Amino acid sequence: MGKGRIVSGMRPTGPLHLGHLYGVLRTWISLQSEYECFYFIADWHALTTEYEEPSKIRDYTKELVLDWLSAGLDPEKAVIFVQSEIKAHAELYLLFGMITPVSWLERNPTYKDMLQNLQERDLATYGFLGYPVLQAADILIYRADKVPVGLDQVPHLELTREIARRFNYFYGEGLLPEPEAKLSEVPKIPGLDGRKMSKSYGNAIFLKDPPEVVKQKILSYVTDTLRPRKSDPGDPENRCIAFNLIRLYYTEEEKNAVIEDCKSAKLGCLECKRRLAEKVISALTPLWEERKKWEAKDEWLEILKEGNSKAQAEAKKTMEILRRAIFKKELF
Amino acid sequence: MGKGRIVSGMRPTGPLHLGHLYGVLRTWISLQSEYECFYFIADWHALTTEYEEPSKIRDYTKELVLDWLSAGLDPEKAVIFVQSEIKAHAELYLLFGMITPVSWLERNPTYKDMLQNLQERDLATYGFLGYPVLQAADILIYRADKVPVGLDQVPHLELTREIARRFNYFYGEGLLPEPEAKLSEVPKIPGLDGRKMSKSYGNAIFLKDPPEVVKQKILSYVTDTLRPRKSDPGDPENRCIAFNLIRLYYTEEEKNAVIEDCKSAKLGCLECKRRLAEKVISALTPLWEERKKWEAKDEWLEILKEGNSKAQAEAKKTMEILRRAIFKKELF
Repeated sequence: MGKGRIVSGMRPTGPLHLGHLYGVLRTWISLQSEYECFYFIADWHALTTEYEEPSKIRDYTKELVLDWLSAGLDPEKAVIFVQSEIKAHAELYLLFGMITPVSWLERNPTYKDMLQNLQERDLATYGFLGYPVLQAADILIYRADKVPVGLDQVPHLELTREIARRFNYFYGEGLLPEPEAKLSEVPKIPGLDGRKMSKSYGNAIFLKDPPEVVKQKILSYVTDTLRPRKSDPGDPENRCIAFNLIRLYYTEEEKNAVIEDCKSAKLGCLECKRRLAEKVISALTPLWEERKKWEAKDEWLEILKEGNSKAQAEAKKTMEILRRAIFKKELF
Repeated sequence: MGKGRIVSGMRPTGPLHLGHLYGVLRTWISLQSEYECFYFIADWHALTTEYEEPSKIRDYTKELVLDWLSAGLDPEKAVIFVQSEIKAHAELYLLFGMITPVSWLERNPTYKDMLQNLQERDLATYGFLGYPVLQAADILIYRADKVPVGLDQVPHLELTREIARRFNYFYGEGLLPEPEAKLSEVPKIPGLDGRKMSKSYGNAIFLKDPPEVVKQKILSYVTDTLRPRKSDPGDPENRCIAFNLIRLYYTEEEKNAVIEDCKSAKLGCLECKRRLAEKVISALTPLWEERKKWEAKDEWLEILKEGNSKAQAEAKKTMEILRRAIFKKELF
């Protein structure tokens, strides 16, 4: 048995922030040696929400790839490609659509949530309803064994599994594997205001932020609101938002020292965040340096092209099998 | 200005009957000199209803092409191709889906009707709901000026026009033409029992029926039910189902003679239908002879291949324009 196969994508709808880096990208990077990984720019998926103003998708695609490479995604190990270049995703989306009951899509909790949360945009489109069908095509066209997902993505993956089962039921047992969720432990990275870090909340630290911006953002993190004065003892583990970054960037020893100095009112929040900012900046510096190197050359484009042809070859193989399973014979 | 462009397709879901021949195929043939015509085998559309048992679609595809050619569709004049070979239809279907409100699809009267009429099959699928989106892609990818439609297809075409308008609104005025309906006068061809001729009603005369079957079917046509005996005077124009075929196959003079002889009770229904059967058979004979010639060679396959590459080239041109209009810049 070879290595298992992993498929995952990111939508090019904006610059990456620390939430993406630690929530997804680090996971991807940790999987690339252990598995055969297919990572893609989900530009067609980006259209489901950005269709009224899609002109930035191409720029964000470039940004995304540069971020991936800078963070350590390795094109020698993983296949990095662009969804919309592999037209077979659209063909399989169409074929899967034929067997997918509308009711499966309507009952999808993510669908209901997004319709509610993004009320300022008109998302009641056919494409948005069919998001999980396209996602099933993205995953199953590479016959993935595992899909790294967050907890909120589990219903989508369950739909992929149901579509695979239904396809196999109609056209032949074993044609498509049912991929399993690869749930990884993801550190909690709240935004400056304590809510989930998100571009739309304006509370994010972006990978492309220059050091001075990172510093200023970290200084404005909410800390222990029940500790108005430095002389008040704090409770960082339970009441400080910024402490989540300390967990991530500090060694155990350094972290314990902060807890002690905060509880004993020796260390003030401002000074604490100043030190934290230095830590974060020095942790991000290698990524920034890598980024500068990647920006200076067009290699990212070559990497995508090569990834596209590898993905293309795999998608072609699967589609030949699936078409034959559906239609039973070839026409040409 | 060049010739206008026409796009139309037929689903390979069964053998053609006289209803198809006079309702659609003759219209197609009459248009092929006047317009630049793209006629396709709608095999992806066939899946919307046949997804549970699609294994005959390939055979019906061959049958359909042989019927088209035998009836006089001319590959020198019209582009004859297979929908599923032009993957860009799927890509455009996906892109159109992003901008098409689900409510437009749900209110489509054909959708509601078919859900009701075909209750024995489970049609509440995503693909069936999106039938008009795929149809819009089929038509607009060739930038059709006109689409030959029956009255029942007018709402579908209106949806195509709406999708074109919405696409132009978002991505650039004038990108896609709004095709017009080409309503042609179609003779009424009822089935043996007086209902619409249809494979599923078991009341059809198929083009592939041998002469003796055609004869036997015509003899079993319902005639004037208020004329139980030959000696009763008939009212063919108002009460005889078979008379619709007489309108189609007889000259004005011959038809008037039948009316007179029926009204004056000189001509009995059986004898009348015997003569009609001879007429129909001799009218179909050239088609049968052509069919034998086409069956004897594999040329139909070459014709499709050539049609596919012509369609491919046109689709490619349109897709390059549309992709650029959406994303504003190229990635590669």
